[in-house]
Amino acid sequence: MMNGSMLEVAIVGATGIVGQQFVAALDQHPWFRISCLAASEKSAGKTYEEALRDPDTGALRWYCSENRPDSVLHMTMQDASALDLSEVDIVFTALDSGIARTLEPRYARTKPVVSTASAFRYDADVPILVPGVNLEHAQLIHTQRKKRQWNGFITPIPNCTTMGLVVSLKPIHSEFGIESVTMTSLQAVSGAGRSPGVLSLDVTDNVIPFIPGEEEKVQTETLKILGSEVDGRVSPADFKVSCTCTRVDVLEGHTEAVYVSTRKRCDPREVSDSMRRFGTRMLDLPSAPKELLVVNDDPFRPQPRMDRDVYGGMAVTVGRIRQDPVREYGVKYVLVSHNTRLGAAKGAVLVTEHLVKSGYITTQ
Amino acid sequence: MMNGSMLEVAIVGATGIVGQQFVAALDQHPWFRISCLAASEKSAGKTYEEALRDPDTGALRWYCSENRPDSVLHMTMQDASALDLSEVDIVFTALDSGIARTLEPRYARTKPVVSTASAFRYDADVPILVPGVNLEHAQLIHTQRKKRQWNGFITPIPNCTTMGLVVSLKPIHSEFGIESVTMTSLQAVSGAGRSPGVLSLDVTDNVIPFIPGEEEKVQTETLKILGSEVDGRVSPADFKVSCTCTRVDVLEGHTEAVYVSTRKRCDPREVSDSMRRFGTRMLDLPSAPKELLVVNDDPFRPQPRMDRDVYGGMAVTVGRIRQDPVREYGVKYVLVSHNTRLGAAKGAVLVTEHLVKSGYITTQ
Amino acid sequence: MMNGSMLEVAIVGATGIVGQQFVAALDQHPWFRISCLAASEKSAGKTYEEALRDPDTGALRWYCSENRPDSVLHMTMQDASALDLSEVDIVFTALDSGIARTLEPRYARTKPVVSTASAFRYDADVPILVPGVNLEHAQLIHTQRKKRQWNGFITPIPNCTTMGLVVSLKPIHSEFGIESVTMTSLQAVSGAGRSPGVLSLDVTDNVIPFIPGEEEKVQTETLKILGSEVDGRVSPADFKVSCTCTRVDVLEGHTEAVYVSTRKRCDPREVSDSMRRFGTRMLDLPSAPKELLVVNDDPFRPQPRMDRDVYGGMAVTVGRIRQDPVREYGVKYVLVSHNTRLGAAKGAVLVTEHLVKSGYITTQ
Amino acid sequence: MMNGSMLEVAIVGATGIVGQQFVAALDQHPWFRISCLAASEKSAGKTYEEALRDPDTGALRWYCSENRPDSVLHMTMQDASALDLSEVDIVFTALDSGIARTLEPRYARTKPVVSTASAFRYDADVPILVPGVNLEHAQLIHTQRKKRQWNGFITPIPNCTTMGLVVSLKPIHSEFGIESVTMTSLQAVSGAGRSPGVLSLDVTDNVIPFIPGEEEKVQTETLKILGSEVDGRVSPADFKVSCTCTRVDVLEGHTEAVYVSTRKRCDPREVSDSMRRFGTRMLDLPSAPKELLVVNDDPFRPQPRMDRDVYGGMAVTVGRIRQDPVREYGVKYVLVSHNTRLGAAKGAVLVTEHLVKSGYITTQ
Repeated sequence: MMNGSMLEVAIVGATGIVGQQFVAALDQHPWFRISCLAASEKSAGKTYEEALRDPDTGALRWYCSENRPDSVLHMTMQDASALDLSEVDIVFTALDSGIARTLEPRYARTKPVVSTASAFRYDADVPILVPGVNLEHAQLIHTQRKKRQWNGFITPIPNCTTMGLVVSLKPIHSEFGIESVTMTSLQAVSGAGRSPGVLSLDVTDNVIPFIPGEEEKVQTETLKILGSEVDGRVSPADFKVSCTCTRVDVLEGHTEAVYVSTRKRCDPREVSDSMRRFGTRMLDLPSAPKELLVVNDDPFRPQPRMDRDVYGGMAVTVGRIRQDPVREYGVKYVLVSHNTRLGAAKGAVLVTEHLVKSGYITTQ
Repeated sequence: MMNGSMLEVAIVGATGIVGQQFVAALDQHPWFRISCLAASEKSAGKTYEEALRDPDTGALRWYCSENRPDSVLHMTMQDASALDLSEVDIVFTALDSGIARTLEPRYARTKPVVSTASAFRYDADVPILVPGVNLEHAQLIHTQRKKRQWNGFITPIPNCTTMGLVVSLKPIHSEFGIESVTMTSLQAVSGAGRSPGVLSLDVTDNVIPFIPGEEEKVQTETLKILGSEVDGRVSPADFKVSCTCTRVDVLEGHTEAVYVSTRKRCDPREVSDSMRRFGTRMLDLPSAPKELLVVNDDPFRPQPRMDRDVYGGMAVTVGRIRQDPVREYGVKYVLVSHNTRLGAAKGAVLVTEHLVKSGYITTQ
Repeated sequence: MMNGSMLEVAIVGATGIVGQQFVAALDQHPWFRISCLAASEKSAGKTYEEALRDPDTGALRWYCSENRPDSVLHMTMQDASALDLSEVDIVFTALDSGIARTLEPRYARTKPVVSTASAFRYDADVPILVPGVNLEHAQLIHTQRKKRQWNGFITPIPNCTTMGLVVSLKPIHSEFGIESVTMTSLQAVSGAGRSPGVLSLDVTDNVIPFIPGEEEKVQTETLKILGSEVDGRVSPADFKVSCTCTRVDVLEGHTEAVYVSTRKRCDPREVSDSMRRFGTRMLDLPSAPKELLVVNDDPFRPQPRMDRDVYGGMAVTVGRIRQDPVREYGVKYVLVSHNTRLGAAKGAVLVTEHLVKSGYITTQ
Repeated sequence: MMNGSMLEVAIVGATGIVGQQFVAALDQHPWFRISCLAASEKSAGKTYEEALRDPDTGALRWYCSENRPDSVLHMTMQDASALDLSEVDIVFTALDSGIARTLEPRYARTKPVVSTASAFRYDADVPILVPGVNLEHAQLIHTQRKKRQWNGFITPIPNCTTMGLVVSLKPIHSEFGIESVTMTSLQAVSGAGRSPGVLSLDVTDNVIPFIPGEEEKVQTETLKILGSEVDGRVSPADFKVSCTCTRVDVLEGHTEAVYVSTRKRCDPREVSDSMRRFGTRMLDLPSAPKELLVVNDDPFRPQPRMDRDVYGGMAVTVGRIRQDPVREYGVKYVLVSHNTRLGAAKGAVLVTEHLVKSGYITTQ
């Protein structure tokens, strides 16, 4: 890319829904070329097309709204637990956390691993990187390599619910200081994937008020991501976060009602201006949106169906920025972000582009 | 009722959805008998059945899940603006607030008016009565009568979103003192009624993050209802409320994620015990639920579809009572209440039963 | 029952959704007493309550809208594959067809088995009984017992989609003769159960136009049920059926658009009269609806949400009976029936009541 | 266009949802330039932007998923009932049928009118044009002009439900001859527009089995469109059509289950081949899809959410082509077509492109 040569990438967990999103996000990528697809043992040896085929009906099970990239359909799948990475520059993993805990370190011994799994997010030497927010935390990669004696490394992206929140909090944190954050999420069913996923029987004409583990993830990850990196270590940000995470009958796009207490006095107009300035800073990378954070002044926005696809699902949209009567200084607002674009594979690809540009990842 | 004679009631706005709910709630009532149905001029003179008939298809437009009470179908409708109340003991109104502002005072000159409209809720001499929460505010009725020189009076019930909130806050306020409340609602489409109502085009696969006027209503009403009555006046409760009110694709039942800062230390178990004690105090009235506030320990509850109909839609269900990491003392929880039962006509009937029992309303 | 003694019943597959519906339908039944609950080996030895408990959250997984019957929560579960039936008079099975094929014959050696599974529906000596439609097919039980040398027998109920169809066709078949039936179904998600069930990701803002095996079942079962029994054999009805079965985002209640060619001339009024006469014939049984077939003249009915619960979900509602311009003689109409009440456990209980009343089932 | 000059177009009813779709479809069009926007008197004199603004919130009410074309926001709206057409070459109307009956003839006196309204569809001298199906019916324009003494003419497009049906029937009609058609539709809520539109209260967890007037429209229009034009008159096709039209909770995309009796023997494979040949005939026009009719072999397709946007919503997708057991010769299948793209404004634009190309419309 820098010099015209492409980086070769592997996608592990390629048959699942997030894996397919990686395939879609990396197809036709200007810097990356898919050279390896892996999944469980039972897919190994099949072509990708065969692995996607429903055994009963013979139909291809392709779940992304992007077209199925024909170029990879004939690639032969590898077994994720016996993966030959010799020809690969980067490993993208879309694994369940349990399996990720076993397999990702194996890959990281030799190669950079960018992951959507939560397995290593809470380890002290592992950065949770968010484009435009804390890319300086990539410094932890040095600590991690040294400590674990790896040639590669692991960098997970955050939980999809954390993603929209931290992007919207970053400019407030920088300009006004955050005292506390209270957040209620209305999350899309796609966040639960397909196995088991969310049944229509459970969510039609209904709200599910509990997503196991989600609130803790958002609370911990937000503080880590907005924390400060010093000498290869991150001190979590010094404020409190309280969440209630619910599931609603929306296909894609998480909505979050956010209440922020700030350290300095601020009014909605200042926060809005600050968000706009932050949102339009250019990230000069192939998958970067024109604006990472969009402020919409229509009081009926953001809405997940109307705003999730702004800039290809890579922007966070904020609206309804208001004074908060409960907090001495502070604001409340609503945000929408696309949980399976910015919040998953495409977000991971954007992080990886940064790691390439800043020299953490190179061709072998 | 006490002595065997029934109270005669009028329902104004009887053809609309809330009016129909009054008809359903009052049909077969042990104390009340529907003796007058009124609506706009264009219904006047028709039978109730004719007024409900769709002009194009001839089908009856009955919107409640309760069966259509055949007993009232042949009553002749009156014009709400020229209503003869001489034979009536109580007027239930289900009017839009604009019209309520004009018509309700006319009725109140001679009769008690129990209303679902917001027109008079914020007047200093008008109590917003909630069963089991602040029935002592009925004292304001004396002030109101004297000041306005009415023989009757107006008592509105609160907004349907306020209703569930204040029922759940009452025991916390009494036992631990409230410092502040932050609340995000996920409201059912039935709350918007039918004209214009909420289009499937707007809410399917979507969340609408703004309900005009709703947040202000909840904030103001909550403080008034939980305020203290002294000498025929109510001082609002001395805490702050901040809301974000959203609409989701749920038919009936508002869900609210609530975060409460308390003045005294409290833990989730104490709050839960306090709510249970409060919830099971008997209201010995025909429309009273067995428990007004139900605590459900299943972490996946309350859910609107599963919990809205508990005790005939007259109970508020609370769950997920947890410590709140943001607040020094305090808890967070989720509640569900039925916006068109407890939060509308049936709630108003329950209030009225109290007013009868405590002597504010008598046969003429 | 006749003489005051209760029949003891076993429910096999009692933890699943249909099994729970059997529990709900049989709790407080005037003739039947649940004396045995069975499921897979992993539930055996647990109480029913323990078996329903979610291992992660400890919450009870009860899926029916009826209240959980406390009386059976402490019963000890048996292993369905090693079931002691000595104290049991009737076995209700709610098994997947694969397992039913193995287990139901074991039970039928000694006891009557009433099943919601399709395993034996298409065997020549097995009647598919529908209340009010073809109870005379119960004669096949004699053939079945003789041929298979069983003391008991197996009587499955039909597929839930067939159920509504045959109830509506029966009066037309009797009075006008059927030449052909074309039917498009819009089926509820509850028909697919919970494992895997229908994902919101698949059915929200969507229609799924294919339900594997469903169209063949409806076509075959309809002809068998409306066939004539002679000497212990059923000749299928002599007409053709063509279906398209689709899934829509409705929780409960299958809607079917039906087009019938008849042998004799008929007009919509005659068909409507015929259906009404048929619908109101009394079935003097505890679970029988007041009307099995209801004709609704509102052109916007039947609708699944409005009509599925008519008479406790045990009635089929028909509307929009119109002349069919394509067919020489014939009509078209729309029906709604409750797929998990009449079309599942409660329908099976009603069939069983008939078998008791007519002497096919007795206490031991 | 042919010679580089653009045709100037007016959009009447431009503020409504179909009018906005015309604006979106015509923005950046290579042949057409929007030079006039008209709506009711109350919009006249405002800019388009002002006319779209919500009076309460000030937010722009733009309902299309396409971006709002900024180029027309500052155009001044005209009053549709006093429209100056002197600079206009083509009038696109998106009016309710009642108003269309009055206004369209006024415009047609001088200009070509292409309409989505049903007002003139059933007049003998008015062709209902469908791209790729019956463009030869445009011959009626000569008859119409002569008879009505108009310089312009009126050509409506069909009802959105007819559109998908006739595209799929055309190859069957041509190759095998049609004896009869039975069709059940599952229609999207967008087909009902926004005033009043379809309430979530009515369609969530529900099916509405009746759309007034729809079945008659589909039956009549299908025969007219597939009829044969001789000497400036159209004889309707000589077969029967029977429909049941229902509304389901789908945002966009009508699904139809179709059963066709043919005159000649045919099997599903032949019909599928015939459809594919028909579908890929090139329409060399700017808005034409690459394939007008797509056959999808996945048995779970077509689905409205997955297939409505194929080729920009301008293709009809067919699947599940099967032998029909009821019909001597014939097939059944399922189709999906986009009711507000091919079935509305974009479909009308495509028809207009044909009329330009074939010389019916020229610059003045």
